[in-house]
Order: sequence, then C-alpha cells, then structure tokens
Amino acid sequence: MDTERPETTTPTGDLLKSWPNTRGESPAYSTAEAQVRELCRDAREGARLLATLPTARLDDMLDEIANQLEKEAPAIFAANALDIAAAEEAGMHKSVVDRLRVTEKSLATMVAGVRQVRKLPQPLGEKLRSWTQPNGIEITKLRVPIGVIAIIFESRPNVTIDAAVLCLKTGNATVLRGGKEAIHSNRALIAALQKCSSVPKGAVQLIDNTDRALVPFLCRQDEFIDVIIPRGGHSLIETVVAESRIPVIKHAHGVCSVFVHEKADLAMAESIVLNAKVQRPGVCNAIETLLIDRAVAAKFVPQITAALTKAGVEIRGDETVRQFAPDVKIHSATEADWTTEYLDLILAVRVVDGLDGAFKHLAAYSSHHSDSIITTDSIAAERFLNEVDSATVYWNASTRFTDGGEFGFGAEIGISTDKLHARGPMGLEELTSYKYVIRGTGQVRT
Amino acid sequence: MDTERPETTTPTGDLLKSWPNTRGESPAYSTAEAQVRELCRDAREGARLLATLPTARLDDMLDEIANQLEKEAPAIFAANALDIAAAEEAGMHKSVVDRLRVTEKSLATMVAGVRQVRKLPQPLGEKLRSWTQPNGIEITKLRVPIGVIAIIFESRPNVTIDAAVLCLKTGNATVLRGGKEAIHSNRALIAALQKCSSVPKGAVQLIDNTDRALVPFLCRQDEFIDVIIPRGGHSLIETVVAESRIPVIKHAHGVCSVFVHEKADLAMAESIVLNAKVQRPGVCNAIETLLIDRAVAAKFVPQITAALTKAGVEIRGDETVRQFAPDVKIHSATEADWTTEYLDLILAVRVVDGLDGAFKHLAAYSSHHSDSIITTDSIAAERFLNEVDSATVYWNASTRFTDGGEFGFGAEIGISTDKLHARGPMGLEELTSYKYVIRGTGQVRT
Repeated sequence: MDTERPETTTPTGDLLKSWPNTRGESPAYSTAEAQVRELCRDAREGARLLATLPTARLDDMLDEIANQLEKEAPAIFAANALDIAAAEEAGMHKSVVDRLRVTEKSLATMVAGVRQVRKLPQPLGEKLRSWTQPNGIEITKLRVPIGVIAIIFESRPNVTIDAAVLCLKTGNATVLRGGKEAIHSNRALIAALQKCSSVPKGAVQLIDNTDRALVPFLCRQDEFIDVIIPRGGHSLIETVVAESRIPVIKHAHGVCSVFVHEKADLAMAESIVLNAKVQRPGVCNAIETLLIDRAVAAKFVPQITAALTKAGVEIRGDETVRQFAPDVKIHSATEADWTTEYLDLILAVRVVDGLDGAFKHLAAYSSHHSDSIITTDSIAAERFLNEVDSATVYWNASTRFTDGGEFGFGAEIGISTDKLHARGPMGLEELTSYKYVIRGTGQVRT
Repeated sequence: MDTERPETTTPTGDLLKSWPNTRGESPAYSTAEAQVRELCRDAREGARLLATLPTARLDDMLDEIANQLEKEAPAIFAANALDIAAAEEAGMHKSVVDRLRVTEKSLATMVAGVRQVRKLPQPLGEKLRSWTQPNGIEITKLRVPIGVIAIIFESRPNVTIDAAVLCLKTGNATVLRGGKEAIHSNRALIAALQKCSSVPKGAVQLIDNTDRALVPFLCRQDEFIDVIIPRGGHSLIETVVAESRIPVIKHAHGVCSVFVHEKADLAMAESIVLNAKVQRPGVCNAIETLLIDRAVAAKFVPQITAALTKAGVEIRGDETVRQFAPDVKIHSATEADWTTEYLDLILAVRVVDGLDGAFKHLAAYSSHHSDSIITTDSIAAERFLNEVDSATVYWNASTRFTDGGEFGFGAEIGISTDKLHARGPMGLEELTSYKYVIRGTGQVRT
C-alpha cells in the first residue's frame, strides 16, 4: 500500500556545504555552536567518503591507526600528564585519576585492541537477504554503514579510541564528545588518528569544547548526525533524550536482578548472587536486586544474607527478609531501593510470591537490562525467559555475562537499554544499517 | 568491556499501576492528559499480556477481528456517515471525502486485508542466532515484540485497522491517534476490535481526543511507549521529532529522483520517468526530480520534456534544460524546487555533469528515500547503487517499487526514512525487536 500524503510538505534542504537554510529560521549561532556545526558537517562529508571505500581499505585504516598511536606515544603521554595533573589538583578520587591515566601498558592495550578489531570479520557488504520478484526486479537487502555516529562518553581515554575505531571499521564517521577531565588526552589521541593518511578528512571528529551547554545543541544537528549514543550517568542520558532530534541509542542504567525460585539449587544461587553483586559492583550488569521466592525464604534468606555480609555487602531488605535473618544487619528497604542503581556493594533484597511475584516486581521496577532466574524447574525457567521483558534474560547464570566480550562479539561499543535497532551488547553489526538495492531491466509499476 | 558508570544514577521508577513518581516532578495533568496516560498505561499492560501468548493465539485474534468487523458493519457505516457529513459540511475536497468513506467494498477490502495478514508467516519466536560460548552458556538471539507502538496517522479509516492488525500479529500493543476527520469511524472500528474476546484488554487503544496539543504530551510517555511512528505531513513529523522522548521511526517525505546517465537506453528512461512521475503522483515513492547527464541532454531533454508536457506534467527546469527545449513550456526552477515534495504533477529537471554531478546533487538535496539510475553501463550503475545513500537505490527500474507490497512483504506499516532499526518499507519483521536468552548451568564470571 502507498502512503498518501495529504499535506504538501514545505521544502527541507539537505547536507553538505551548500546547505540552504530552508526552515525559515535565522540561525544566530555562537562561535562555539558554529564550530560544532562545521565539525558535524565535515563528519557528514567524511561519512560520504568512507562509504565509497572498499571494506579492505577500512581495515587498512586500522593498521595505520595502530602504528600511528605507537608513534605518537610521547605526545599522548605528555597530553595525558596535563589531565592527570589537573585531576590531582582538583582533588579527584584516586580511582578516578587511575581511570584517566594512560600508561605504557594501557596504551599498548589500546593499540592491541585496534589490531583485534581490525581482525574481526567485516560486517559491511553482507547480503542480509536477496530475492527476485515476479516482475523480475532483483532486490538485495545490503548491510551498509549508518553514516555519522555521535558518541558522548565519560572520561576514559581508551573509550575515545575504542569508539572511533569500531565506527571506522564499520564505515561510519564519528563525532566524539568526551569528558572535560580527559580533554588533553583526547586531543592527542584524535590528532594521531587524524594524521593517518588513510583516514578521510572528517571521518573522526572531536568536539574539544566541553561546555555542557553544547550537548543540547549537538543533539539538534540532525542534518548531519544519524544516531547519538550517550554513555554515562543519568543526567546526561536525560538531557540527550529530552533534547535530541536525532535517534538515540541509550546506554542507560542497569537495575539488574537475580530471582531465586523455590526449586533453586541454593549453593548455585549463592554462588551466582555473590558473583553478580560482588565481582565488579561498579558496572551496569551487576545486580542491584535479589528476589527470593517465599517458599524458600526461610532457608535461603539467612544463608545469603550471611554470605553477602561476609563479602562486605550492605543489605537493604523488606520486612520479611529482616524477619528471616534477625541476626544479620539488614537496613529497611524503601520504595526507592527497588529502582536504584547502586554501582556499589549494596543490594536490595525482597521476598516475593513465586514466579508471578517476581514478574510483578520486575514489570514494575526492572530497568529491562539483565535478569536471571535460578531454578532446577525448566517450566518455571522457560516462563521466566519468555515473560521477563529484558534485553538479556538468564537461567542459572550470572547477569555479569551481558557484555560484548563475553558474548564473543570481539568488541563492544556499549550496552543498549533500548529496544529499537540494538538491544543489549552492541557489537559491529549494531553499528550498521541496510539499504535495498534493486536491479531491473526497465520495469515500471502498473 | 564493561561500562563503568562514574555517576550514581538517581532512582527511576517503572511501568504499571504502581508507577512511583521519582522524577521529582509534581505532575499536574489536565483531565485529557490524565486520560492519555491511563490509556498508555493500559497499553503497556496489554503488551505484557500479548507477550505471554503463543503465536498461534495472536493469529486467532486476527480471525476474530475479521469476523467482528463484518458483524459490526452497520455500526461502522453509521459512524462513517457522521464523518462524511462533517467533511462535506466543512467543504472538503471530494478526493479527501472519498478517502474518508467506508463503503461495502472498502470494508470488505479491510477485512480481506486482516485475513491476509493472518496468513503471513509469523516472525515472532525466530532464533536469529544461537551459539554456545566456551564456558558453556547457550546464547539465543530471539525475535520478540517491541512492546507498545504509538502510531499517529492521517485520516484514512483503513489505516486504523491496518496498523492495529499488523501490530497485533507481531504481539505489540498499539496506541493509535488518527485524524479528527475520521474520529467517528475510528471509534467504531476500534470498538469492534476491543469487543473481540481474544484481544487482551489494553492491546488496542484509540486516543479519541484529537486535540493537537496532546501530540507532544503523547511523545513524552516514554514510560509506557516503546516507539512512535508518525505518518503524515511535514509539520506532524517536525512536532514529533522535536518533542519526543520516545524513539521515533519517521515516515517522512520522499524527494525521489531518476538520473538518466549518458549511456541510458533513452526509450527505457522515458518509460521509467513517466511511470515514476505520472502513474500516482501523490505518493512518497513518486519522483520529484529528474537529473539528466549533460552528455545526453541535447537529445533527451527535448524528448522527455515533450513527453512530460503531453502527460500533463508541469516542468521546472534549470537554465540548461530550458535552453535545450526552447519550444516546451518550462518554468524556471528555484533552489526550493530541488527539495520540494510536490506530490503532484510537477517535476524539477536539472542537467548535471555525469555521475559525479548526480552524486553531488543527491548528497545535497535527496531525502534519501528512493533514487534510480538509468544506464546500460554496469560500472556506472554499481557506483550509483553503492554511493547513493538512500533507503532504496535502483538501476533501470521505477522508484515506485519502494513499497511493502511490491517487495513481497505481504503487508506494510509504512516506509521508514530513518536509518536505524527500519529503513525503507516496514513489514512485520520491522515491528519486532529481539532479546538475548541465556541458559547456563551455574556459570559465574571470573
């Protein structure tokens, strides 16, 4: 069926230097805004150039980038030293400063990462489907780059290279906006990439003005940017979602959970709960909530609360949990605990009425990231896997596996908490789009 | 790699009746707004119920819907008569009134459409990929419904049923917001669907308050709605894109083109140009622009301008076009003509310098919907198919084939002009998402 269009549209212009201002606005951009637009416009042209390259040439770029990063090591260390000094002067926490630091070892890891991505199979050019219609037109659904990807991320210099390289591998130009704490390091890293003769002009762009007011402005550059990926805290994601005219793939919070079913192997349950909470609490696939089936609460609540306490975890339990483990120090959980991403050694614990109680809790409070059921009952497990609406649902495994590396993707741009285009770990394929290529012999529609 | 999260997120609540207001707002909703929220909330619950149904039950729903629509025919005709009377009283154009009219025949077509969709292969439950990691976890990428889909559309009653039925087939709840001209018809049609005992409560929702101010409000109901699909004119799409917190799949304008290359078969070129412009000018896959290679302009410009004029097409040409066809009435094209979707018997014609001239024009002005090259030169054709960044690119065929029916999809919710999730004609598969289902035996991450 065709879509009849009742309303004649007003003209809208398009890309490139000749962009006519047809929206009827008289744009009065500040100098900083004009610079952002110029940089996004150049990225669009960079994407156009990338799209014309054979995929082998895209991989060649990554070789040159790895070599160039090694060559530029002194400049990168010198720039990083400025960031480290500023961070220390500002009294930042040692763990934050450590994440900011580029060492011989971490640079070598970055470079090795680039060479690893270079070796990954090239998703571009894949024929996703190909068929011939009765009238003889041949239709091919072909995997192609998305175009220009804007990524707003936190202050870890390795993310800068990761993001740019994954996008280049898949033929996409990037507009990168990192945190201000890493600005000197990011400038040096991106300068190294831009020096590579195989990297088209505009293909990697850094917004080196970290004024937060420019983020909403960036989110309105839909003439030049095809998708925006915010990776960071709640307020960043909120700003981007509220302001963006560009499609957003959110890498938002994970309020993940484990549900211990009445028929769980309790030793396995303990092992998985501890792993999912304690092994690395500061990441989005760690659990924040433990749901315990009432049928097994008398036994499991004392067992797990003791084990968690021993592991240094602060427990926030509902009344039933507190009653079942009177000897363990358990804080009273409030409503807010069911939706809080602690990213710390804190766990909210709740007793629920069987599978349906777990479903009710998850429908109301889960962030739809990763949820796991521990049970020996396959019927209960399959209902959980089917009915829980999360990006990744588990049966008898730790939620910590929601990760591109653990999935075998070889690389990951992040973990999407959206349901469109990309859900869960985003690898190379998720950085691509498709087009329909139709070859005919003069067919017309009758 | 894991995503470290430097900023502890503030709690955000989630779905369903118990939704706590954790954004710190004190929402003072108007009665109309509160009704929209309630309806969206019910749709979320409807989606949850749909997700628990076996796919055979989803198809059963469509059988009941088809029967129910037949049963309710008198009520539907009576309601439609109110819309027709109002439209005639308002002095609407006959073609608009005709599109609004539900006749015995058009209702039968609607019902047949429902039965056709019922017969289409069910995309849900497809294992898109399935593999086992070295640690033994089994990962399945499973096709699942998106959830709640909001569709804002123009005033054609058949779209109401099409949209609801395609979404139900794929296990999605819908929030429909049609035009006010069809409000009585839409109420009767949706009432018929809601009467079906197999359709879960909340699965099909109609916003029957057509106050335009509620559209931006709807676009902010991201707790309840997973994607919003606007189908309509420029101002609607602009409003949705600017206001939406919800991912949008735009069905925006098509400024499609044919490029006649120097090595074109000019008889084929004439046939395709006429078809793409004249056969049905009011649809998005009709062409608005004709690009002619300078090398063949002296011959083809007089030929095609005469043929177009004979077919009743108004021509807006650049100076070169006017010079090559001094005897044909050709208006002077302005900058705005290159970006205008006429949806009428008007065509902008430009002479360009070969393939690169065509690329330059398209990069600057194409709406990236459908563009076709006419040539006998396969190298030129392949460059065009590769380098033109449009949803559908053609070689020697009419752009009018960009259509779910013509692609053999059996059904179509519309034609996406976005690059994420769905590009080009959207069939059933494009109404689905996926989840990762992981089955383990106690694996933890080390």
